[in-house]
Parts: sequence; structure tokens; C-alpha cells
Amino acid sequence: MKRILNKETPQYPDQEVKVAGWVNTRRDHGKIVFIDLRDRTGLLQIVCQPDLVKDVKEEYVLEIEGLIKKRPGNTAKKEMATGEVELQARQVKILAKSAALPFNFIEKDLSLTLPILLDHRPLMIRNPEVKNIFKIGESITESFRKTLKSLDFTEFQSPNIVPLVAEGGADVFHIDYYKYDAYLSQSPQVYKQIMLGAFERVFTITHVYRAEPSVTTRHISEFTSLDAEMAFIDSWKDLMDTCEVIIRNMFADLKLLKVDVPELGREIPRIKMREAQKIILERTGRNNLKEPDLSPEDEQEICLWSKEKYGSDMIFITHYPTLKRPFYTHEDPLDPDYTLSFDVLYRGLEIVTGGQRINDYDKLIKNIKKWGNKIETFSFYLQAFKYGMPPEGGFAFGLERITKQVLNLKNIREASPFPRDMERIDNKLKKGPSTRLRVKKK
Amino acid sequence: MKRILNKETPQYPDQEVKVAGWVNTRRDHGKIVFIDLRDRTGLLQIVCQPDLVKDVKEEYVLEIEGLIKKRPGNTAKKEMATGEVELQARQVKILAKSAALPFNFIEKDLSLTLPILLDHRPLMIRNPEVKNIFKIGESITESFRKTLKSLDFTEFQSPNIVPLVAEGGADVFHIDYYKYDAYLSQSPQVYKQIMLGAFERVFTITHVYRAEPSVTTRHISEFTSLDAEMAFIDSWKDLMDTCEVIIRNMFADLKLLKVDVPELGREIPRIKMREAQKIILERTGRNNLKEPDLSPEDEQEICLWSKEKYGSDMIFITHYPTLKRPFYTHEDPLDPDYTLSFDVLYRGLEIVTGGQRINDYDKLIKNIKKWGNKIETFSFYLQAFKYGMPPEGGFAFGLERITKQVLNLKNIREASPFPRDMERIDNKLKKGPSTRLRVKKK
Repeated sequence: MKRILNKETPQYPDQEVKVAGWVNTRRDHGKIVFIDLRDRTGLLQIVCQPDLVKDVKEEYVLEIEGLIKKRPGNTAKKEMATGEVELQARQVKILAKSAALPFNFIEKDLSLTLPILLDHRPLMIRNPEVKNIFKIGESITESFRKTLKSLDFTEFQSPNIVPLVAEGGADVFHIDYYKYDAYLSQSPQVYKQIMLGAFERVFTITHVYRAEPSVTTRHISEFTSLDAEMAFIDSWKDLMDTCEVIIRNMFADLKLLKVDVPELGREIPRIKMREAQKIILERTGRNNLKEPDLSPEDEQEICLWSKEKYGSDMIFITHYPTLKRPFYTHEDPLDPDYTLSFDVLYRGLEIVTGGQRINDYDKLIKNIKKWGNKIETFSFYLQAFKYGMPPEGGFAFGLERITKQVLNLKNIREASPFPRDMERIDNKLKKGPSTRLRVKKK
Repeated sequence: MKRILNKETPQYPDQEVKVAGWVNTRRDHGKIVFIDLRDRTGLLQIVCQPDLVKDVKEEYVLEIEGLIKKRPGNTAKKEMATGEVELQARQVKILAKSAALPFNFIEKDLSLTLPILLDHRPLMIRNPEVKNIFKIGESITESFRKTLKSLDFTEFQSPNIVPLVAEGGADVFHIDYYKYDAYLSQSPQVYKQIMLGAFERVFTITHVYRAEPSVTTRHISEFTSLDAEMAFIDSWKDLMDTCEVIIRNMFADLKLLKVDVPELGREIPRIKMREAQKIILERTGRNNLKEPDLSPEDEQEICLWSKEKYGSDMIFITHYPTLKRPFYTHEDPLDPDYTLSFDVLYRGLEIVTGGQRINDYDKLIKNIKKWGNKIETFSFYLQAFKYGMPPEGGFAFGLERITKQVLNLKNIREASPFPRDMERIDNKLKKGPSTRLRVKKK
């Protein structure tokens, strides 16, 4: 008999079926045992004779054959997708046993701290709420891809081993690369821009790395970047328009998963960073008018303002200072101390960053020198501009940050299945000689 | 006026349009200049007065407004998608200039070696044949994803920074991870298996890393792995069946791109490695019956046999020796010196590797010890099995290898937009102190 999924069982009343899954709960009622069996589609109530499931405990993996019966009217459970039926077990096969559980991972135990939950990630991933986080992450990624494909963008594979540090200097991981030095990519920027020469519109879904020297709730060392770049733009506003299309589609898709999505109003407001600082001063009395960036506190405040004034949980902040953006960022021709750059803030957190790039070769050369770097260092990258590059720009969405905000998670670590930070890779890190494994059998 | 794409121009006879792209070629005919303008959709012939394009050279980026006219019958070019029309330029705007080209990158210049072509990748990516390689790569990736999504697999993000060496010992890249040691992932194996506990069927499209100590035409240091894992299998043959579905869909999709796809016969043959060695002995006299693996020569030969006997360019080779596979590989219960593992060879090259895994916790513990490793080292991973894991297995497709074989490329480096090897990251590597960049403006 072919296994069917739990969610399919209501289609088989009074029929013999085979199901398989994990024992979510077991309740002994004298001559009868109730098991809630969990598979990837949800729960199903199993009714068993005790001798069929004598040694069976929670998280045992079972394959069960039996008869699907409608539950008596008063015992049906409306809140369960299979709540109208139950399986009367005829035969039970144990596919795998489980050790005693360290804690109840199904019900939320508020005494468990995040580090303990992460230590037990391979078990916690089975918790329906935790599992759902990664379904949401998958949906966000798919939606990003779907929108860009519909706009004729080409997806490519951007490398993670890079020869240079494109974004930041200190916060980079060094790799022992044969006899040479290499680094983990902080951004696919260089490669996106190069690929424009063939495809005009490209995107890549890639991992990027930041050796963040501090532990915060919004930074992890390896995260997923949804990165796009487009050429032949008429204006840098095309970039924000495209972002907004992506965001609206993303939330339309999430709505189908019954996620409580943010309000965006008629359009996501766009204001300059300096304007934002003035608004913050007026609202709070905090005078940050001379600061080159918004503080986390400011980011919170300006989102509150956006919500109140425009009914939008998101806002574009534009025109960051030239001094604070990478060398390839396009200056505002009307005010060269500021750039044609933007961030999208979502309930106080930056989830997108983007802008127009310098496409003029001579200007790029000048800027590399102005930033104090050598031209030779960028010779590979510079070819893309030396041989003709149209006006272009791009942006990057941080997957785990969007997931965190959509689900109101407290810590970004919850939004990554296997978060890495300065204290953790899978387990909490310990000092001492590293473990080199034997590969072949002794 | 809104820009239209070159391929759209035949829909606008006798109408004013705006196009934009790169100057592919320029031909001066006295009072008239012909330009082939290249955009992401192909070429369009532009007819210009010389004064409109006075200083314009190859790879200049132009925006052109003008009138679309049918070409006189005898000058139409059937082999060109826009060959029936041309644009009579009225106005030309230079969006970007190009330096003189180092060589003719559009026509294939056979005197250029692969290292030179790779040094110039940012220019070469614009060559239509090179560009096409990455369209094929995108299609293979999409097809893999599409098939697995249709089979209810969930996509997840697997980390690239790992604490351990799961597959090989020596060929691994070390990362300076804060005060600790970490490595670049050689396989998402551990994480795929853990994710099964929530989703039963998962896949990830990820980069994997091998510090290959030698230069060959089939190895690169960073490559793209299309990795899937499925639980509740009835037999390890389910894995090969799923692989075959993926492969057939992949080639059906590639056929739409007019790629010359391989023949697969009615079904892809499946034979044991030891049988393959016997066939090779019979056919060639090479006695490799005691070897624990097939040599590249053997892999070529058995594919020839498969093609002759079954009309299939691919073959499953099964039952590799237990000694040669990782500790988590499931032994064949009928013959424990061999495993329930398989490779897919495609015209002599391994493009898929897979197999059933050990899902029994006690057996896994025993094997870790037998391989000479410590249990504590695997404590994170082992949780997935300690708390009940059904029978399961999986496989990984090598994207660049499939691309190489489909297109009959000589070297796998051609199949990666930015190949890394022991001598190259973008440019050829040079010894000396590494370049640390300044990030902020001086």
C-alpha cells in the first residue's frame, strides 16, 4: 500500500490507508491509546489497541495501516485540518525509535532561553512554529525570484570566495586559500555589475558574511542576500519602483500563507535622511542633524512617523552622505555630498539597501583613488566599465531580517535555520585545538 | 519615449521607437554608417548619418531614437531575429564610452587561451556563446527547483561556514572565525538531514568548496551543488527514480532552449560498480576488478557501453565500496562491504552522487567510532537521529559539471561565471601581502 499524507486522510472515509510520521503526543486511556501522528502536512489522530503500540513513545517514527473513520460529531476537532476523522490502527511498524526528549519541544516552554533552543535546533526544527519560520523564508525568497523573473532578470551564481574586501575593511573573514589570502564575500556587488554586460538585469540569491565584532539581535555572521542589479535605468527612482513591486508581491504571497503582513499605504513614502532627522528632532527633541546615519532609535521613530502619517510600516530613506557609502555609489549631481542611495526601513529595521552606481569609468577611477585605494586592485572589476556600462543600480534584501520583522521575532537568530555568530556555529564555540576528522574507515 | 527591446522592433514597422544597447559592430559605407546594436535580446541593424555617430566605436552604449523600416527584400537577414527590419536613426545619445577593445571578443579567436579569456571575463561575458552558457546554467537550476517543488520538497538555506569537515579531511579551506577555527562547507549533507525532521523532503542550492590540490579540467574550488534529501523512502531505489525524473525534466526544459540534449533511452541503466569493472575488462582488457572506484578512463568506457547497449548517454553506477564512502552511508544489508549508493555518469563524467543514509541512531554511533572519530564531535548532527529519523537518502547534482557536459565544454572553468581554482580568484593569484582596502573616503 502506498503511503498517503495526513492531510489527505479526510478524502478516504471508511477506507484502508497507510500513513507515516512522528508520534507528536500519546494519551493512554485504559483499553485504548490515542496518538497524534505528525507528518509534514500536520497531525492525524490514531486510535490504537495498547498492544499495537506497547513501547512507542513520543518522536518514534511509525508507519501505520488502518481504517479512516469519521469521528463522532461531538469529538470532531474543528481547529485541526484532519479533525473530522481518525485512523483506527490495524498494524503499526516502528521505523525509528527516539530517546527520551530533553524537554517538551512542541509546547512553547518560556523558561528555555534562545541559546538552549539553538543548541537543540535539530529537535526544535520539528516545532510547528519554528518550522513555519522557514516556510515563510522560502516564500519570501521565491516571491523575490518570481517578481524578478517576470521582469526579465536573469539569475546567476555569485562566488563567495573573493580576492578583495569590497564593502568593509575590518569585519571580514579571512580564508587560507592554498598559498594565498582570500576572503568571504561581503556582497555580490562586483559580480552583479559585471553580469549586467551580458544580461542587463540580474539577480543572485547568495550568502554574505560579516565578521560582526559584537552580539546584537539584528546581526548574524552569515546571512542570505537577495541581490538584484539593473542597467539602462532612466533614473535611480526606477530602482525604488522595482523594490516596491518586489515588496508588494512578497506580501501578497505571504498573505496566502496567512501571515499578518504589514500595511504599505498607497505608496511607500520616500524621504531624505536629513529630512528624517528633522522630523525626529521635532517629534522627540533628539538633535541628530549632524549625524551621518540614522541610529537604531531614529529608525524606529521614523517608521512610527511613516505609519502615522502615511499608513505605511515601511519607508524609503534616501540620500545618505557620500562619505558613508562605498566608492561606487553615485553622487547626487545636485548635491554631491549626498548619494542617490536608499534604505528601506521596516518597523525600525533596515531590510533593503540600494542605489545608483557610478557607471562612468573615469569617475570610478577617480573615486577609487579618492578613497585611497589602488587602481590595479580593481582591474578585474573595472573592465566592466572600461568597455561601456550604461546607467545602472541595484539593491539587496536581507532575507533573515525581513523574516524577523514579518513574524515579529525578537532575535534574528530565530530567522536562520543555522545561525552563525561570534559565539556559535551550530553549537556554542569552544576554544582549543580544532577537530580534524578521519574520513576513511580505520 | 519608453525604450523597447531589439526583439520587439519588428512589431513597430514605420513607427518611431527608442532602443538602447552596445555597439556590436560598426561598418562605414561613405555617406551611411551601419551599426549592429546589441541588447539583452539580440542584435538590431541601425542606419545612421555619419555625423550622428561621429566618435562612436565598438562597445559604446547608445540610446537611439528613430524609425523602424522594413528592409528591402534582398537585404533581409533570415538568420537574425530582427533581420526583416532596421532602425533609421534620428537621434543618438551616448550613454557610455568604451576604451579600445583588447581583442575581438565577439568572434571566436582560437589563438586566445582559456586563462586569457578568464582574465577578461567581464568583457567575455558579453560574447553570445559565453552568455548562453549561463542561461543554460540558470535553466538547469530552475528545472531542478521546479521538479522538486512539484514533488513537495521545501527549499532551505544551508550554511557555508561549518565547524567540522564532513566529507574529506585534507581538501578543506580553513576560515579564521573570530578566535576560532571554521571551514568552508564541502557539502550541505548534515543540514539537509536535520531539516528532514520538519519537512521530510528538502533541497538546497548552495555553494560547496574543495581545496583541490591539483589543476584538472573537471575540478574547481567553489561550485554549485543542487542538493536534495528525502525521508520515508521505501527503498533506496526511490532516490534513483527521483533523480531520473529530475534529469528528464531538466533536459526537456533545455530542449526548449534549443540545446542538443543527451539521449537517455527508455530508462537510464543501473549497474553495480563491480559489474561495470567486469564489462570494462571484457571490452578493453583493463583489469581494475580490485580497484575501489572507477578511474576517469573507466567512467568514459562504461558510458560508451551504456550508449551502445541501451541508447543512454547516462548510467547509474551503484554499490560503491563501504570503505570509500562517508560514515553515514547505508550499507547494503545483503553485502555490507558495499553501500546503497550511486553516481550518475554522463558522457564519462560524474554529475550526481547519492545514496541511502544510516537513519538508525545506534548504527550511526557505531560507524562514527569505527571511522575513528569522537561522538561529541557530531553531537549537534546526531540529535536528528537520536529523536527518531525515518529511512532516508539524498543526492547532489553538480551544476557546472552538467553544464559542461551538455554544452561539450572542454573545461569546467568555462561553466562557472567566476571560476576559482588553486591559481585563480578572478585574476591569476600572485604571492605577496594581501590587499586590505580603505573603506571610507580619505
